[in-house]
Parts: sequence; structure tokens; C-alpha cells
Amino acid sequence: MIIILKHGATDEQVDHVIERIEAMGLQPHLSKGTYRTVIGVIGDEEKVQTAPLMAIPGVEEAMPVMPAYKLASREAHPQPTVVEVGSGSAITKLGGGHFGMIAGPCAVESAERLDEIAAAIKAAGANILRGGAFKPRTSPYSFQGLGEEGLKILREVGDKHGLPVVTEVIDPRHVELVAEYTDMIQLGARNMQNFVLLTEVGKTHKPVLMKRGMAATIKDLLMSAEYVIANGTTEVVLCERGVKGFDNACRNMLDIAAVPQVQLMSHLPIIVDPSHATGRPELIPACALAAAACGADGIHIEVHNCPEEAMSDGPQALLPEQYATLAAQIRKVAEAVGKTF
Amino acid sequence: MIIILKHGATDEQVDHVIERIEAMGLQPHLSKGTYRTVIGVIGDEEKVQTAPLMAIPGVEEAMPVMPAYKLASREAHPQPTVVEVGSGSAITKLGGGHFGMIAGPCAVESAERLDEIAAAIKAAGANILRGGAFKPRTSPYSFQGLGEEGLKILREVGDKHGLPVVTEVIDPRHVELVAEYTDMIQLGARNMQNFVLLTEVGKTHKPVLMKRGMAATIKDLLMSAEYVIANGTTEVVLCERGVKGFDNACRNMLDIAAVPQVQLMSHLPIIVDPSHATGRPELIPACALAAAACGADGIHIEVHNCPEEAMSDGPQALLPEQYATLAAQIRKVAEAVGKTF
Amino acid sequence: MIIILKHGATDEQVDHVIERIEAMGLQPHLSKGTYRTVIGVIGDEEKVQTAPLMAIPGVEEAMPVMPAYKLASREAHPQPTVVEVGSGSAITKLGGGHFGMIAGPCAVESAERLDEIAAAIKAAGANILRGGAFKPRTSPYSFQGLGEEGLKILREVGDKHGLPVVTEVIDPRHVELVAEYTDMIQLGARNMQNFVLLTEVGKTHKPVLMKRGMAATIKDLLMSAEYVIANGTTEVVLCERGVKGFDNACRNMLDIAAVPQVQLMSHLPIIVDPSHATGRPELIPACALAAAACGADGIHIEVHNCPEEAMSDGPQALLPEQYATLAAQIRKVAEAVGKTF
Amino acid sequence: MIIILKHGATDEQVDHVIERIEAMGLQPHLSKGTYRTVIGVIGDEEKVQTAPLMAIPGVEEAMPVMPAYKLASREAHPQPTVVEVGSGSAITKLGGGHFGMIAGPCAVESAERLDEIAAAIKAAGANILRGGAFKPRTSPYSFQGLGEEGLKILREVGDKHGLPVVTEVIDPRHVELVAEYTDMIQLGARNMQNFVLLTEVGKTHKPVLMKRGMAATIKDLLMSAEYVIANGTTEVVLCERGVKGFDNACRNMLDIAAVPQVQLMSHLPIIVDPSHATGRPELIPACALAAAACGADGIHIEVHNCPEEAMSDGPQALLPEQYATLAAQIRKVAEAVGKTF
Repeated sequence: MIIILKHGATDEQVDHVIERIEAMGLQPHLSKGTYRTVIGVIGDEEKVQTAPLMAIPGVEEAMPVMPAYKLASREAHPQPTVVEVGSGSAITKLGGGHFGMIAGPCAVESAERLDEIAAAIKAAGANILRGGAFKPRTSPYSFQGLGEEGLKILREVGDKHGLPVVTEVIDPRHVELVAEYTDMIQLGARNMQNFVLLTEVGKTHKPVLMKRGMAATIKDLLMSAEYVIANGTTEVVLCERGVKGFDNACRNMLDIAAVPQVQLMSHLPIIVDPSHATGRPELIPACALAAAACGADGIHIEVHNCPEEAMSDGPQALLPEQYATLAAQIRKVAEAVGKTF
Repeated sequence: MIIILKHGATDEQVDHVIERIEAMGLQPHLSKGTYRTVIGVIGDEEKVQTAPLMAIPGVEEAMPVMPAYKLASREAHPQPTVVEVGSGSAITKLGGGHFGMIAGPCAVESAERLDEIAAAIKAAGANILRGGAFKPRTSPYSFQGLGEEGLKILREVGDKHGLPVVTEVIDPRHVELVAEYTDMIQLGARNMQNFVLLTEVGKTHKPVLMKRGMAATIKDLLMSAEYVIANGTTEVVLCERGVKGFDNACRNMLDIAAVPQVQLMSHLPIIVDPSHATGRPELIPACALAAAACGADGIHIEVHNCPEEAMSDGPQALLPEQYATLAAQIRKVAEAVGKTF
Repeated sequence: MIIILKHGATDEQVDHVIERIEAMGLQPHLSKGTYRTVIGVIGDEEKVQTAPLMAIPGVEEAMPVMPAYKLASREAHPQPTVVEVGSGSAITKLGGGHFGMIAGPCAVESAERLDEIAAAIKAAGANILRGGAFKPRTSPYSFQGLGEEGLKILREVGDKHGLPVVTEVIDPRHVELVAEYTDMIQLGARNMQNFVLLTEVGKTHKPVLMKRGMAATIKDLLMSAEYVIANGTTEVVLCERGVKGFDNACRNMLDIAAVPQVQLMSHLPIIVDPSHATGRPELIPACALAAAACGADGIHIEVHNCPEEAMSDGPQALLPEQYATLAAQIRKVAEAVGKTF
Repeated sequence: MIIILKHGATDEQVDHVIERIEAMGLQPHLSKGTYRTVIGVIGDEEKVQTAPLMAIPGVEEAMPVMPAYKLASREAHPQPTVVEVGSGSAITKLGGGHFGMIAGPCAVESAERLDEIAAAIKAAGANILRGGAFKPRTSPYSFQGLGEEGLKILREVGDKHGLPVVTEVIDPRHVELVAEYTDMIQLGARNMQNFVLLTEVGKTHKPVLMKRGMAATIKDLLMSAEYVIANGTTEVVLCERGVKGFDNACRNMLDIAAVPQVQLMSHLPIIVDPSHATGRPELIPACALAAAACGADGIHIEVHNCPEEAMSDGPQALLPEQYATLAAQIRKVAEAVGKTF
């Protein structure tokens, strides 16, 4: 921790800060500049992190020097984590050179429709099937998902096509239920800082797909991963899916630099979801290829066989044939940067 | 609904859009421009709102003309809603000219400390006591609140000082418990789109304090209020508490124009929280006065009697004496724009 | 300057950083933490500021401890600057308790129209007349202003009504011409970092009205003021006029906290322009009152007597009668927080 | 143009709007919905674009249906524009499958240094040399460039190595001078809406490299290109270089989706500058590859042979050897998506 005092801080204020530091069993290291005084704090950074040092009169800033996301940090775990999703013959790996191709409809609507979509994406090279059974909708009047019925359909269709499945949970009371049916639990962007849900999901020890919140910094994202890991699940895949931007021509702004940033700061795999990032099918292919080229550990794309009838997010879905074309291009680019399938 | 077709949409595409509209029992009204074709859709807008019209080939944009937040809209309810918080002799009103002065520590830390703070803010003119028992913290290693013990302390201290109380709920499984102890339930910024929690809180029929999410538009905020109202609670107070900004010199960016915007679009009261909006005590007074002048229905401020010992958000708390000075100024400005206390 | 080394920086890297610092005639002060090494740099901060210390291998961050905007800083000049605009009997002061009421049309369109508007705003209490003669328009096909003819009209109408005038300059080749006709030179938001223009304007020694750029931090704004001051003009009035936001319901997002922030960091007056900040007449009054309450040194409002015929920005203009009502309220609120008129 | 009236607009208001439209020689087409009235305006959209229709009482919104950037639009010019930079044997093409590799130091510092860098980037495959002679610096105390001396050095070094050159102009009075020495004129991000400069640069008929402003939407960018084209230069290359973001861990936020968006909306080539977008050398390679994969028409990268001595932006420069490695990867990815070199 580095404590920067305000210009003009009094000797009493400096002494008071030093006392507080020593009272915590830490060692202050004073550096008087011509303009400001700076105090380095040596000792157990964790003790210091949670202390409200900035509230002490005379303190301008208190800057931690160690990341607060300990378990998620690259420093704690220099090798990339490889997350295994699924079991038996249907196992997909993400991270450490392994590339995930997650695809499927926004919501599970019926067994027939999901079966058709699953067959198509499997043929195109997808290796994880997605589909929502519990949908977080901005309007209380919109379709909220099929619930447990949707989970059953997802499981059956996944098994039939040899695809591990991922689905979102939005209620801590449903975590156990969802965990029973799925191979990977999705935490949605709107729930990235729903710490109650993070805690429950962490306890399942299932692989997690954590989407970045719309106003979350990379540090915020890693802090949320830390919640999950601290509660028991070490297999967390992060997902960049666009953040809030100022240009409404796009649904969100895809922060492609998040991929190398996460890889520098953390050992966790990071994938990209160009469907939610852009909300516009005509922009998805280019953004998916960008993600593959910049080293993402996977791509998440929404696919629907009749977008105009979709019960959720139809306008942003690719058609199965569009996905097939794109999947082949993604594979080519991902292989060019060293991924294996 | 207005459907704008792409420049160059084919006759088949136009016909297909018209068929879809008629199939929904609605009436299309075609307007062929020199550059684009536009279709007005006449009939029950609600049916149309949830249809994925933008997914139909040839459609450029589908724009609703009626707000999707029906119950929360000013049009549905032209008179301002007055929310009553508390019971018996300790009732505080917000909205329709009534002004709420919500104050208290970020977290309930102990009965003694809360009692001291409550006495001070009551004397300064506050009319609702806040204090967190369940804290949504970005780090799993931070203090998470006293839980039910905190709720008890809050209730007792509120009763002792004749102050209705408000506290946050973060877990749908705790909604009933929290509702038992509090006069008003807070939904935090990070949970503004936690629709499961919104639904449970709506069912309690308790007044709600809903904070705006960090990347939420005003429309998003009103859609979340709609969730609560649609589930039973009509008494929702909205709270502008700063949105994500690009200048890290401030914790968030206070969107002061949200106050008149909400008042144009909705009948619900809107208050301002300059503590979270700025995160810096030296900016809080000016921002609080701005909020009072622009017609906010209340001000929410964090107060602590020893910020450097606070277990949460100490650096942004005002001291009781700072609050007392500010409260007098707020009252003066609020009265100047027609509020009653 | 504080230099924070990367975790794991080698001894050679540390030595190299120290050598570089000493080579600049400065004194390094080493502080080895358990996790990171930090070097305080003591001596002439200015020498250090412009050095690319962050480019040295092993350096994680190089943080200045002194503001880079020396002349504009509060520390260099603890007393608020009072800017005087105009001459003879028509002098308006801004800052140090003096409040500027700047009003007028977006563009000067004709002598008659400007005369009518000027008479109305003068009667309402405005003390500076604005009007654009050179307009920075986003479309090359839009009205670009009357040029010198507009400057002449502005000067004559201002003189007739005893109002000092302010107008924008957008071309460094016109600075002298504009300075001849006007009492105060406006630098628009889009030109806040047009350093060539800033330099030329600074040389005129005329009072300047500098609008904040749409993506400028407060520090950026003060750096631009520094350009003007360093070139000769010490009388700079800053103007918060909304920054880029993510909610397109408003033209921009009014950053009201910029007012107290500027006042903490600088001695320069800061005013608010709610017209450009919101772009919507129905939001202007509330935002103007907010600005007055939070301590702004003035308010800038666009007024037009027939917005639907305005040649620029009509939709955001207030009518003269709306301005009159608002001006009376602004004065009341500004007086309540200690301003004089 | 589509005019949406406010809910509850009176008949008089509707009639007034219709009269105004007819007075402009246009044809209104009324569509009365159950909730709102909408008026389609048929006729010459250009006449309508600049009219302040939104200022008419009762109008909620006035939406153009035709892009305001006519000359820059894809609709006006369906085939991609190929921009040729340079002359004689040193010609580089961008657009329509041709890929530009622009590289060089932020500022021209000396003939020797530039010569060394140019030799290195040429060997690595760069096909345009960049270097600033007039630098827009945020501090008046920073190095402002070598001026004409810098232009001469750039020209000589470019010629020696057979590389066309690009350099920034920041002053309309220098446009002719700069045009004399350079093959392509750069308009910097801070000057994207410096319409005076845009106009002068357009008159030179030289190829232009236009960087996107930090708060500019894609439409804003195309409107600025329109300025240049309307003044004479049809060869404009656009450049995405990161926009203002909320996460300060990165200098800016690279909006990668801007590439396919521009390609849908315009015929102009679009390149990416990952150096300014990230400001961090460790993120540049991944972002450059992303840009190549998503179809950008070129990549702009800052290269310096001794970043810690650079007089401008050293910390974000790549070393020549880093650039060589990256350039080979870029070429591979760009070829994979169909570009030629």
C-alpha cells in the first residue's frame, strides 16, 4: 500500500497516519518530497486493503500495490487454467490453447426447435450447447423462460448430440436445481455483482461461465471471479460481451482489449460473445474473427433457426447456415494463433 | 410501433412484414417515401412490443411509440405518487412536494454507534434512518454486514429516535426477514436488474427505494420499477446515485438531469444520493444542494461519526456536524423550490 | 513523482531507473516493499513530468504528485479569480461571488432578431449577450454563420443594450478579427484541445470562455486552460456543458459535480450551460437551478424568439418568456448560496 | 424524415406541422395511431435535414431516414474506395483488399533516429512511414515537434527507403506547407471536429488519414469525412484509435466493431491504431491481430528504437524487433481474410 498525503498535510496528520499503520502491525516507510509526503506500508497487504485509510484526515490517496483478486490473479497462478466442461465422451476444454465454441438459442423454446439447432451447430463444429431456461428479461411482461422444463430439454438435447450444455441461473434458490441438469453454470452480465448468487454458484463446484457486467472494469470482473473461487469453484471462464457505450448504433461496445488484459492479469480463460456485444447479426462475424485472432479461448454465439419467431433476442441471432460459415472461419483464424480443437 | 424498412427492401419483404403484422391482429399503415418505406402499426401496442419484428428480413428498425413501463409511466398516472414510509407517529412522506432526508451509516456496526449517529441526524433534521445489515461488497474478504443482528439494531434505534428505517436486501431468501424489520426496502444499484429480487420485493407491498444501476438508462430504471409495481408494491422511490463515468477523479458521475427526466416520464418520486455519486466528502454538499434545487424529492447521505473506523465506505461519509450544516442548507434550497418538511 | 516498479522487477532494472533519475539531476528515494519496490523522486517535478519514465523496462506506473496545470491550479493561486467582461458602463464580473447570466441565440441571424432577443434577456436580468458568427457545424451543408457581418451586429446590439458580448472563434486566422468585436472569446467544446487555437486566443489577453470537451476529464480541461494562460490571458472562465453519456434520451450528460471539483482544483470561475448539456428545453430549468445551487459562477442559456425558425440548435432554445421566469428563479437560488448580482 | 408527435398533441399542433412541411415544398403523409400520430415527409430529404422541425410545438422526435453523410455513404458509392498514397515507385494502396501497414515514431526527433526506425519498419513490411512534425500536446510545456525541419526529415527519410509518408497537420495556416512535404495528411482525433481544418485539408486534394475522435459516434466520423470530401478530397482513410472508456486500466477503449460498421455504412477504407487505443505495448499485438481479422484495411502502429528517450508517447511504442514479429503475424491473419500486400 502506498499512502499519498495531501499537499500541506500537517505534522499531526502525518503522525496520526503512522500511528494507525503501526497499530495494524504494519511498518510505515516515510518519504518526504518537496511537494508531498508519501508513506509506503510494508507488511501484510491484505490487512491493509480493507482498512479505510483514505478516510484519515490528510490522506489524498491510498493505493494498493497487490491485486485484491488473489486467487484469480496470474501472479498467484502463473499457468493458464484449463476448464473442462462436461463428462464422459462429451468433454470440452477451454483455456491453455483449447478453444470453446459455444452456440445455441437465447432461450430454450421447445424440444423440437432446440434439437434442430443443436444438430446444426454440432455439425458446424460447436462443442458446447447453450440455451436459457430462466431468462432475466428487462420487462416483467416478456417471456421468462420454460424453467425446469427448459433444463430437461437442454439436458436431453445436449446428451443426444454429445454436446456439454451451459445455462444461466438467476435465482440462488435454483442453483442446486440448475447444477443438476447442466455441465456449466452461466452467470449473466446483470448478475456479475449479485454476490449472493456468486457465492451459491461457487459452492456447486461446477464450471462457471461469468459474463462481464455492462459497467464492470476488468478488475471488477476479476473480483467477481474471486467470489466464485473463494467459495469453492476454481473453474471459471470469463466472457467479454460488450460494455455500455455512447454510440447507440450498437447494442454495446465490444471491448476486445479485455482479452489480452485478462490474460495478463489472470490465469482464467476468457471468451468473447459478439452476439450480445453488437446485437446486430451483420457485425457478428467480423467481431468473432477479431476475438479469435486476439487470443480468446472461445466464442459464444446465439443461433436460431427462425429469428423472427424467437421468444427472446431474435434480432441478434445468426441462422444455422450463417453460423456454419462463420465457425469454419473462426477455426481457421484460431488455429493460426495456435489454438487446438 | 413504427417499422422502418431498409433502403432497398424488396416488395416481398414489405409484404412479409405486413402479413406478420396482420397475423398479430394489428393494422399496418404503409407510407412509401422516396428513400425508405415506413409502416405504422395500429392496434394493441403491448402485443407488438415483445414481438421480434426487427428480426424480419428487410426491417431496419422497429420503434415502439408507447412506453414499455406502463404502470410506472406519467401517462398512466398523471399525478405524482406520494410514498409514505413508516407507521404510527414516525411517518415520512416523499413525492408530491414532500421531501425525504435519508441519512445514516453505510453499515450497521453496533447499537452504540448507530444510536449516536441516529441521534445526531435526527437533530439535524433527517426523517429516515438508513443502515446496511446485508452488504453487497465487491471483495469476498470484506465485512459483509451483521445480518439479522443488524436488522434488530436498526429497528430498535429507529424506534427510539422516531425515525422510519430503510435497509438493503440482497438475497431473495431474506426478503421476508428484512421486510419484518424495516419500513422501506432498498434495492441497490448492483441489483437494479436482479429481476428475481425485484419480484420478491414487489410482493411484500412495502415501500421500496430503488437505486439506479451504474449503466442503466432512465428507461431501464423505469422498467425495473415496473417489475416491482407489477408484482404488487406501488410505492417505489427511485434514486439517482451516479452512473459510470470516464473521469476517475470521481467515483461515479452524478446525472443530475435524471431528476427532471424521471419527473417527466414517471409519477414516482426521485431522490438523489450524492455520497455514492461522488465518493468524496468535499463534493457532497454542492451536489446535495444541486439535487434539492432541481426538484428532487429527497436526499440520501451517508453519515458516520468516525469514518476512519467505518467497516464500509468510510472515506465517503460525512461527519454528523458536517451533515447538520448541510441539512440546514438543503432545507433552505428545497423550500425555495416549493418543498414542505 | 512516484515510480512504482513491476512485481518481480530485477535489480538491474531498479538500478537503471535510479541512474535515469540521477541523470536528470533528481534524487531517488527507494522503498522496498514485500511485494513491490517504489521510488519517490525528489526535486524539480517539472523536469520529471515530461520524461517518459513509464517506458523504462520494469516500471509499472509513474505518478506525478504535483498538478501539471500549474498556472490554473488552486495551489498556485489560492484566491478565486474574478474575471471582468466588458468595458465602460457595461462590465460583468464572474467568480469570487459574482454571477454571470449569459444568454442569447445560438447564432446571430439578423440585427432585428438579435435586437429583440437582447432586449428581452436584458429585461430578464442577463448580463452578457451571446451569439455565434462563426458556427462549428457537424454538417458541411448546414448554416455556418454570418461571419464578420454577424460580429458587427453582435457588437452593435450589445452596445445598444449595455450588454458585454461573447462569441466563438473557430479559426486561428480569425482570432484578431473576433477579438476586435467581442468582449469575451468563446472556445467551443469541439475545440477544447485545438491547441493552436488556444495559443492564439491566449495571446489576445481578452477574457476567455472555455467549454469543456465532450470526453475531457477535469484535468484535461485545466490543462487546456493552462495553454491559454501560459500564452498570456489570465482571465479564463470554464464552462461545464455536458459530457458524452450512454443514455441517448439526453444530448449529453451534465456533470454537475464538475463545479465543486473545478473549484477545489482551480482558482478559475466555472459556469454551467444546461442548454447544450441537455438539448431539451423541458430539462433546462431544473438543471440551471441545480447549477446555481451547487455554486456555479454563472449560467449560460440559449434563448431564441422563434425556435422553429432558428438557423442552428433551435430545438434546445428557451423562449424569452421562459428565460425570464427561469432567470428570476436562478437569481433567488444563487443569492441563497451567497452570490451577488 | 419521420416526424413523431407527442402523445396528446392537439389538432392545431398537427396542422401547424403539416403547414410547415408543405411550406418547404414537401409532402406530409399522416398516420394516426391509437397512441401517437406520425407524419412521414416525402420529398427532398436534404431540405428537411437542416430544418429545426423538433422545435415545433407538439413534435416529440424528427428522424431522418437518409444518411446526412451523402458523399461518404455506402449507398452513394457501393464499391469500396481504394486510396493510393505516394507516387512513382513508392505507392501504397488501402481499401478494396489492399492493406496498409503504417508505422513510425510518434514524433520526428532527428534524421538519424528516423532513418534507423524507417529502415527497420521497411524491412518488417511496413508500407507507409509516419512521424509527427507538429504535435498536439495536452501540456503547453511539452515538446511541440520540430515543425518544418521535421517535415523535411520525414520526406527525405521516406524517399530514401521508398516509403510514402504521412504526418499530422494541426493548424489551417500550415496545411499548404504540410501538403508540400507529405503524401498523406493526418487529421488527429482531437481535431476530428475542427471543421476549419477539415475544410482546408479537403482543398489540398491529398489523401487524408482521419482519426476518430474520442467521443465521436460512427456517424460523427462519417460527417467529418463528408466535410473533407465536400471540399475536394475524395481519398479519405478513416482510423479507429480507441474511444473514451470508463476503465482507466487502458488509455482508451478500442471499438473493434467500428470496422465492420464503417464498412457497412461507407465506401471509405478503415484502419485501426492499437497504439493509441491501448497505450500499452503489451496489449498492442493482440489488438492489431484482432483488427486484421475483422477486415480492417490497415494497421497503424507507433515504433521507436528507444522508447525511454522518446520525446512523445514513448511508453506506448513498440521496439523495431517487436514490430517485425507482429508485422509477420498481421500479414498472415490479413491474408487469411483475403487481403493482398
